[in-house]
Amino acid sequence: MAILVVGSVAFDSIETPHGKVDHCLGGAATHFALAASYFTDVRVIAVVGEDFLPQHEAVFTKRGIDTRGIERAAGLSFHWTGSYAGTLNEAQTLGTDLNVFERFEPKIPEAYRDTEFLFLANIDPVLQARVRSHMPKVRMVCGDTMNYWIKDHAANLAVVLRELDVLLINDGEARMLSGEQNSVRAAEKVLAMGPKSLVVKHGEYGATAFFGDRSFLGAKAPRPFRAPALPLADVVDPTGAGDSFAGGFYGYLASQPELTPAVFRKAMFYGGVMGSFAVERFGTERLQAVTREEIDARFELFREISHLDPAV
Amino acid sequence: MAILVVGSVAFDSIETPHGKVDHCLGGAATHFALAASYFTDVRVIAVVGEDFLPQHEAVFTKRGIDTRGIERAAGLSFHWTGSYAGTLNEAQTLGTDLNVFERFEPKIPEAYRDTEFLFLANIDPVLQARVRSHMPKVRMVCGDTMNYWIKDHAANLAVVLRELDVLLINDGEARMLSGEQNSVRAAEKVLAMGPKSLVVKHGEYGATAFFGDRSFLGAKAPRPFRAPALPLADVVDPTGAGDSFAGGFYGYLASQPELTPAVFRKAMFYGGVMGSFAVERFGTERLQAVTREEIDARFELFREISHLDPAV
Repeated sequence: MAILVVGSVAFDSIETPHGKVDHCLGGAATHFALAASYFTDVRVIAVVGEDFLPQHEAVFTKRGIDTRGIERAAGLSFHWTGSYAGTLNEAQTLGTDLNVFERFEPKIPEAYRDTEFLFLANIDPVLQARVRSHMPKVRMVCGDTMNYWIKDHAANLAVVLRELDVLLINDGEARMLSGEQNSVRAAEKVLAMGPKSLVVKHGEYGATAFFGDRSFLGAKAPRPFRAPALPLADVVDPTGAGDSFAGGFYGYLASQPELTPAVFRKAMFYGGVMGSFAVERFGTERLQAVTREEIDARFELFREISHLDPAV
Repeated sequence: MAILVVGSVAFDSIETPHGKVDHCLGGAATHFALAASYFTDVRVIAVVGEDFLPQHEAVFTKRGIDTRGIERAAGLSFHWTGSYAGTLNEAQTLGTDLNVFERFEPKIPEAYRDTEFLFLANIDPVLQARVRSHMPKVRMVCGDTMNYWIKDHAANLAVVLRELDVLLINDGEARMLSGEQNSVRAAEKVLAMGPKSLVVKHGEYGATAFFGDRSFLGAKAPRPFRAPALPLADVVDPTGAGDSFAGGFYGYLASQPELTPAVFRKAMFYGGVMGSFAVERFGTERLQAVTREEIDARFELFREISHLDPAV
């Protein structure tokens, strides 16, 4: 089934110990859409400026991504400047030029209205809720957020959380949202806010899924599930790793005929797989060029490094 | 096969968000020996003072641990005072009274000389090397160290590292020892110093094993292996978690007739299992009272939370 993602399509200027890029194509919706496109059809709602050229659009269309929901506005696209040092676990934001994104009013093309799988990337929760309310046929809603919305827009975010089947956030966000240091207690509190399940990303240590009583995977809440990350010698650029994880995770889920605990687990592995590819090159370079064969080989590698029976 | 552990038997005074204990039995060799005792015979070399009473010795003997190598000296036992806050990932040391441990000269009882599995807990690398050199029948040597020895006793530590089949350290120690921030590059550098394999512990995120070219598990270096940790709502006292991991890991290894990649993987899981029990109560309380049935049930839980096929 097709996925609709609403979020940012942007340009990133990034410096890491491996080098520097200026104005490369980025944004949460871009990373998500590229990663998900290896599993299912993807539709995008975003806004871009006049600096979004045909070669940028081609990055999407070459992967078969539906760009009819990418609105063109006068001015420049959202531009993020950041750098990474040390373990590359955290970005230092050097500049955020919202540009056309500041007045982003998501418009849902008629052709998108039948989408059953919705991904609300990290944008203002007011916009996330609005998009959700205009998608009557949605079967599953998955979403992301960040410290800024958690801290200063809690009431608006609370509305969105009640609508989510899966909330995908990182350790720091889970602690901030819950006010709990312990990861299990943090997950319990977050699930009590509404999401049916919670996927907490641990960067280089993988991710853990927690399920609430209202879990969609069965009558009783399944146990937590821990997916590994691949130990990588060269993390060239971590930007978009979380969105790529979300794309692999949700793309695989949406591609399956039924949602079962086994499918959810495989989706967590595919999330890690797409995140591991994303960080191998700057920007979206690797996600544009990976093959389904490479994805499946890496999925097997994830199994091999985490399962008791060594590879056959 | 029996394991010989040389290290500290001590008293700990600990404060965590869950409470406070004064002078409870602790020390690396204690946690290690108790955890390993569920898998194989364990012999201990340590030194204690006059405050080490029959009830403390009974903690060892009740688990069938051979205490003939625990030397009694005039004075008080090693006493550590520490506290934990926040995520409980790191202890703050408030006091270290070495007492009789300051002049510790490990003496190897004649009855211990045939031991084939040696564990060098975190003590002065000069003593680690000396014990190793007096154990001619040793088949496998596994060891631990800490930031103090890495920083100020590098030359002595280098001698020990060349003797190790497995070095067990945590993320921070791996970074300090290698001077590398990236975990894969750090592992490569540490393995180049001599250990045939390296197990890096990630606290609540589990542990990763890396193998060098001289790996004892096969002709070619196996891929890394990631074992999960159990998400726990109540981490009462993290003291000794790493030593308990080592005990479960090495105890299982020593109990097996052959060292294969599959055995090593299971050992990593048993390490996590024993670490997860250790932190459920203060001091060694939980490790004294756990049953083999509980251990095996938790092993299955570790499999369930990390493997693609959900529990049967």
